[in-house]
Parts: sequence; structure tokens; C-alpha cells
Amino acid sequence: MTDVPSIDPRTGATVEIVAAETTPEQVDQFARQALAAAGPLDAMGRHGRAGLLDRLADALDTAREQIVAVADRETGLGTTRLTGELTRTTYQLRLFADVLRDGGYLEATIDHAADTAMGPRPDLRRMLVPIGPIAVFGASNFPLAFSVPGGDTASALAAGCPVITKAHGSHPATAQLCFDVLAAAASDAGAPDGTLGIVHGQQAGADLVAHPAVRAVGFTGSTVGARALLAVIEQRPDPIPFYGELSSLNPVVVTPAAASDRGAQIGADLVSSYTLGAGQFCTKPGLVFLPAGPDGDATLAAMGEAIADTTAMVMLNAGIAHAYRNRTADLRAEPGIVTVASGQTTDTTGSRGTPLLLTTTVADLPAAATEECFGPVAVVARYRDTAELLAAIDGLPSSLTATIHRGADDPLLLADLSGRLLTRAGRLIYDGYPTGVAVSWAQHHGGPWPATNSQHTSVGTSAIRRFLRPVTWQNAPADVLPAELTDDYDTIPRRLDGDPYIPGRR
Amino acid sequence: MTDVPSIDPRTGATVEIVAAETTPEQVDQFARQALAAAGPLDAMGRHGRAGLLDRLADALDTAREQIVAVADRETGLGTTRLTGELTRTTYQLRLFADVLRDGGYLEATIDHAADTAMGPRPDLRRMLVPIGPIAVFGASNFPLAFSVPGGDTASALAAGCPVITKAHGSHPATAQLCFDVLAAAASDAGAPDGTLGIVHGQQAGADLVAHPAVRAVGFTGSTVGARALLAVIEQRPDPIPFYGELSSLNPVVVTPAAASDRGAQIGADLVSSYTLGAGQFCTKPGLVFLPAGPDGDATLAAMGEAIADTTAMVMLNAGIAHAYRNRTADLRAEPGIVTVASGQTTDTTGSRGTPLLLTTTVADLPAAATEECFGPVAVVARYRDTAELLAAIDGLPSSLTATIHRGADDPLLLADLSGRLLTRAGRLIYDGYPTGVAVSWAQHHGGPWPATNSQHTSVGTSAIRRFLRPVTWQNAPADVLPAELTDDYDTIPRRLDGDPYIPGRR
Repeated sequence: MTDVPSIDPRTGATVEIVAAETTPEQVDQFARQALAAAGPLDAMGRHGRAGLLDRLADALDTAREQIVAVADRETGLGTTRLTGELTRTTYQLRLFADVLRDGGYLEATIDHAADTAMGPRPDLRRMLVPIGPIAVFGASNFPLAFSVPGGDTASALAAGCPVITKAHGSHPATAQLCFDVLAAAASDAGAPDGTLGIVHGQQAGADLVAHPAVRAVGFTGSTVGARALLAVIEQRPDPIPFYGELSSLNPVVVTPAAASDRGAQIGADLVSSYTLGAGQFCTKPGLVFLPAGPDGDATLAAMGEAIADTTAMVMLNAGIAHAYRNRTADLRAEPGIVTVASGQTTDTTGSRGTPLLLTTTVADLPAAATEECFGPVAVVARYRDTAELLAAIDGLPSSLTATIHRGADDPLLLADLSGRLLTRAGRLIYDGYPTGVAVSWAQHHGGPWPATNSQHTSVGTSAIRRFLRPVTWQNAPADVLPAELTDDYDTIPRRLDGDPYIPGRR
Repeated sequence: MTDVPSIDPRTGATVEIVAAETTPEQVDQFARQALAAAGPLDAMGRHGRAGLLDRLADALDTAREQIVAVADRETGLGTTRLTGELTRTTYQLRLFADVLRDGGYLEATIDHAADTAMGPRPDLRRMLVPIGPIAVFGASNFPLAFSVPGGDTASALAAGCPVITKAHGSHPATAQLCFDVLAAAASDAGAPDGTLGIVHGQQAGADLVAHPAVRAVGFTGSTVGARALLAVIEQRPDPIPFYGELSSLNPVVVTPAAASDRGAQIGADLVSSYTLGAGQFCTKPGLVFLPAGPDGDATLAAMGEAIADTTAMVMLNAGIAHAYRNRTADLRAEPGIVTVASGQTTDTTGSRGTPLLLTTTVADLPAAATEECFGPVAVVARYRDTAELLAAIDGLPSSLTATIHRGADDPLLLADLSGRLLTRAGRLIYDGYPTGVAVSWAQHHGGPWPATNSQHTSVGTSAIRRFLRPVTWQNAPADVLPAELTDDYDTIPRRLDGDPYIPGRR
């Protein structure tokens, strides 16, 4: 058995041994318990599970001080950020309780028997049902929002699916603590045993993905990690859905008019965005298009000053910091790449990484600068005219986000930019910054490969759709139908014989 | 270049050479044209594309006589069935025109800027957008409803995605004729060049799936074929979604009360269902659970009489008939399998297959009898009691459908059966037969692997979701927003600040 250590990235010291790596027999046991819990969790109903989610949020709030302290010690992200992250997580749990009470997520649809142009149609009633146990892979960079607690867990539980999380090796103590808090609250709230499970260790994660009881995987991590788990899925007799949030460049375009209007401010704010959390956000702006000429020069200068004011940052673990140092060294060695500014390098060993600002022209833009580089670095690519800018955008990979800073006088450019960026991003941001993803009904956190491998979101209310599948009942007697599909059930949005219906507005 | 022949399955004769196999260069050209068409097709808007779909339906109706004749000559399915199949296809095209005019499929959602418990939220507006060119693989068994015309093509075009179909080698003349009719109508309706494309040949299909311009694949066929295309996708630098409708056993349970009430009628109707179209439906009932004892005996006897009245049936092609003969020979050699009755064997060479009725007990049920066998055969498994029946159901693979024939006095058994079958089917049918899939808002044609590899449907209005992805606009100026996301747009269902809205009911 291999120990799972909790390491302080500020010192490199092992603070405690959290657990032993989970054995194949234990993975099997968790998976079987989860399968056994699936029916009872579904049977709690929408209102029962809404109450459960509220209780989980309350429990995390109650344990907030302890959770934030352990997470800070283990990730170095700081208590302000981690407090905000936990608030986001409890907000999200309560929002999914609202989603359950609303009921529209079920997509309940009734077509009564009728004669149609293609002949007689039987009575058909469709809604979404939970798919069964979900494996959730915690991310290194969001110990509280994309880990044991977080969007995947909240949306899967809301859907009615038991969750087994694979704790990230970079914060196993945080993962285990959150699990203990959530599991106790779930039990208190009457959820079945097996509603939540946790495994530690890379092999245990692979075993979990291979287990017959597991019906889907939620994953936030690298494309390499995703490809490895997809290979495990491909070996299953029954391949299952894999929802991966993977790699994202998050390009930012500053139009000439925006640079002229407020270039220096944009520059300073961009540096805040790309160094936030030591640049370890999936939405970090990694590539900035700035116009050539004096306005762009002023923007770049403001960015350089802001970077020069920074110091080396504690990253999530020594491996990530090591990869950051290697990646940025390679990037700086690319022809045409110029280093504009560095943070003050007090210590670049262990888990520390120095913030960097690099620049080039769109004509010289190396392919390496169009791939995500995890950490506090951005590349600024200068463009001479609209044609050059648009051609460069057409060469970009897809991202979770794309951002446009615009001025008063470029509506045509704006429409062109929006149209092109739309094809390669899941969220278009205007005059803002991509870091900070609001949790809401209209949010989308996704995008074409390599941003994700799915057409779903991992943030926002529609994330629940990943863990549901449709079922249609044909000519079913009322007593076997889910209540939401019976004729008189009028408290949720439905579609009836083709027409949308919402409660209270007959 | 290899010729693509059109073969008459009734005679085995090559009637004509339809085309040469599509070359890699031609595949590339089709894919590029489709990519160029994607923007203009989207720009036609919902009402423009609704008009296009209506025009496509009209064109198929106009060419109905010729299409049915060619399809009958090439598939042997008969003009009655093929006329019905074309009616279904034109109905479906017009239903998707309704879906477009309704607009609810966009999932338009607006969250205005607000203060929330997790802090200030920007203005967020989400809706679904088309993903780009789609490769559609025609199925052997539905030359008009899951082929060049059909659910995949209709839903992809509705979504705003150009379609390149891979013609099935079993009916290339039908595919090419339908393509010519549809392409001419699309052009007349003002759709951009490249809206529709067609390729012939297995290698051309693989080339299409590998092409960078193709954004998703719609596939109806075998798990072997699906695994081969999934391997092509895995080799892409950017894996794309694959929507496969694959293999389905479609179990049927006859309860003791149902057998007692109307066993003979159920038996006769089951034979009609499983021999319909020579048993070449994805929803063919392949395994029937009948009670032991006299009522079940009477049901089985009625099935045997009905099978004995049949003659060898023309199957779709010689390869399928050959596979049917081999599969059924293997099945009949399994220990515990007894042949109850055969159709009259006038000729079992070439493309003909003899209908068969096999039986066994649930205790002896071989694994081979729980896999789809394409063609006019079903296995009847006799059960002695409820426990034995439920245990057998728990061992089944997932299917597109599961059917229960019930009597007046088994509500408890009914609830148990429904709950268990729900976990392994996409559609539950009561007192009916799985063949014949109505196209409607509430239809679902899907299910866990091996029925499909997705949580989506390939029949019914929600099939459109496969070819759309969400995008969120954050703080976007009104002039770059899609019209459906502007504040005053009130003619489609939307969700506004968390509340559902439907037109005309403010």
C-alpha cells in the first residue's frame, strides 16, 4: 500500500499522511455501494434531493474555517481566494436545489395519442432520468469548486446520481475533509449509504473508470490525463460518457479603439487576470492580441510595469511549478518571442514560479504560444491591421472563452471578431476578463476540443444534463409513470402536445 | 477507382453502376464546401431553414414514385413499407420546421447583471448554436428514414449544420437519387452550395470522419462499425462527438395475467412485429419472456403457427442474409435452445432468410440469445415465477426498447418490471410492440450501450440537440447578440433571470 501525503507547497514539507491509496477491492466496494444507492437517491425525489443539497451547503458553511485552512496549507492559494471559492460552491449547491424545485430540467414532454400525417401515434411521455453512479475527478486548481465538492458533484447529486470522487493528489487532505463533512451531512439528511464515495491514487481512478457500475465520468484536467482515461473507457465492454474540461488558451483581442480609449487600464487589469491564483485558472487569458503602434505600446508598457511589480508565486505543487518553468523556458527560446518583463525572482525552486510577460507579432506567432501554458504567463501578439488579426484568429484552437475589448468606433470590426471567435469558444466576453465564472442559469463553461470533449457545460444549471438520459413511456398506465409525467401534474414546466406550458399560466 | 454497384437482392443481379467510390480528394472537396456553407446556412435563420425543410419534404413527395421504386428494387423491402417510410421522413422534415418556428430548442436563457450571494454577476445570455458540418452514415435497413434523408439529416439541417452523407453500399442508387432530389431542392430554396454532400465507399466514410472540417458523426449501424469509426475519431487531433445507434435486443415480457387474458393474440402479433421488414428493424423484439404453464404454452403455440405460415424472406443483401443464416445456426446449436417452428424454406440461398422461432428457459438462457440477431428470429424464454423473471432481466444488456404485456391483476409485478426495465432501455412500451417508432416531441430512440453510445435520441424533435452546442455571451452589446437573445425578443420560449417564459403569456 502506498501512502498518500499532504504536502505544503510553500515549504515542500509533507505535513501528514492522509490515507493509503485505495485498493481495487475498496474501489469495487465503493462502486457497488454507489450502485445500490442509485435507486433510493432517485426515489428521494426532486424535493428530497433539493433538501439534501441545501444541507450539504450548510455543512460546508459550518466547516468553512477548517476547510479553508486545510486547503490553504495544501494549495497555497490563499484564504481570500479559497473563502470565495467555497462560497461559490455552497451557492452552486443551493442553486441546484432551485433547479430541482423548478423541475424544468426534466424536459417533461407529453404527446397524447393522436392521428397524425404519418398515421396513428400512441401516447408518448418523455423525461430525463438519472444515469447512475458518476466518477468525478477533482482538479488541482479548484480544491473546493471542481473537486470533492463542486460543479460536477452538485449537478450529479441533483440529477439523482451517486458520486465517487477521485481525490486530486495535490490536495488529498482537503478532499478527505470535504468528503467527511459532505458524507456526514448526507447521512443526516437521509440520503442512502453510498451516495458519496472517495478514492485516492491514480490507479484507483483508472479502476473506478473501468468499473461496470460507473455510468459516466466528470473530469477537469489535462488533455493527456483525459486521453489516458478515454483509453480505459474504450476498453470497457460498454463505453460510457466522459465529460472532460481540458485545455484552454482564452484569447483576448484589444481593438485599436479600445487601446486608444483605455489601453493602460486594460493592460493592468489583464495582468491581474492572468496572474490570479498564480495563473492556474482554466480561464486564464494566455494570448492577447494588441494593435501595433503607440496605443498598443502603451498597453504593453502598462502590462510590463504590473508584471515587474510581482514576485515569484507559490504554485499548486512542485510538479506544476517544474512544468511551468520548463514550458516558459521553451516558449522564451522560440524565434520571435521577446520577454518584456518578469516578476521579481526571489526563489524559483520547489513550487514557485515567476510571472512573465512575453511578446511577439502575429506574423511570427509560434504554435507553442497558441497552447495553454498553466501558470502566470501570457503572450502578447501585436497585429498591424484587421486582416492580419482575423487571419491569426482563424488559426487558433478552441477555448472555453474569448474576450474582446472594444472602443466606441469599431462596430464592423466587432461583428467580424464576434463571428470568428464564436466558432472557437464557449463564452464570449466583452470589455471584461475571462477569469471568474459566475454560476447561473445562462452560464456556459465549455467549448470545442481541446476546451472540452463535450457539448455540455461543467458550470451553471444546465451542467445537470450530463448526468441524465431520456426515457419515453409509451401507452403506460398512470401508476407506473413518474409523477411529473401524469396528466394533472401542473407545477413544473412541460411541453404538452407540442406546446410549452409553464406553471400558473394556463 | 472501384465501382459502386446497385444490386437487386431478389435476384442477386447487378442492375447498374451508381458511381465510383469517392476519392480522398473528393471527400476533401465536399468537406471544404460544407465548411464554407456552415455560416450562410446558419445565417438563413430559423424561419429560413424551416422553409428549406418544407421544400425538401415537398421535393421528396414529388419524387415519391421514383424513389420508392428504386428503393424497393435495391432493398426488397416492398413498396408499402417504403411508401410509409418516405411519409415518415417528409413528416419528420416538416416537424423539424415546426421545431425551428417554435424556437424553444435554442434553450435561450438570459441572466441580467445582478448582485448575488456569490457576488456581482455580469449580464449572461446563453443559447445553442450549430456545430458545423456533420457526417451522416446511412443505415442498411432504413433507406429513406435513416439514410441520405432521415432523422440525422433533418435534425442536422434544422440545427443549421451542413450534412455530408456516406451512402450505404446496400442501396447506393436510392442514396444517390435522394441526394440529387434534396440537393436540387436545397439549391432552389436558396440554401448555400455545400449544404448537402454525398460520398460512396467505406474508405471515403473513414476519410470523412477524419476530416478536420467535420464536427460530429451521426451513425446507425453495428457496434463493430461504430468501434472502427470511434478508433478513427480517437486518432484525430480533435476528437469529435459520435452519435451511434448500434445494437438492441428489445426484450418483451408477457406477464402471467397477460398470457391468460390474450396469449394467442399476443403471440400472433409478436410474430408480425419480429418478422416485419424481414426482422431488420433496430426495434425488432428479439427475446420474449413467457410464463411456463398452459397459458404460456398457448402463446408459444400461436407464435409457432404464425411462423409456420411464413416463407423465406428477401433480406437487404446477400451478406446480411449469410450472417443471419450463420448466427441462427450457431444459436440453434446452443445447449437448451429448441427450434419451435420455421418458415417454409423455398429458397435459402443468396439474400433469403427463413423466419425462425426458438425457445428455451430463463434458467438455460444462453448469452448468445441476449445479443441482437438481425433478421426474422426471436427467442422465447420461459420463466417459472417472478423471481426467476426478474433475475433474468437483471442480466440483460441495454436496449432501445423494452415491452411489457400486462393483465388486469398484476400491478405489483408491473411496478417491479417497469423499474428494472427502465435501467436498461430508452423506451418502455405497454401492451404494444416496439417496431414502428412515432416521430414526435416526446419520442426517445436511444438507450445505454450497446443501444447507443450517447444520451441523446436519433428520432423525435430533441434529436436536434446533438448538433448544437451552447455559447454564452457576457456583457455583449445588443448589436452582436443573436436576435433571440435580445431583451425585447418575445416570440420564443426562454428562461429569463431563472424564470421560464413562453410567448403570449407574460
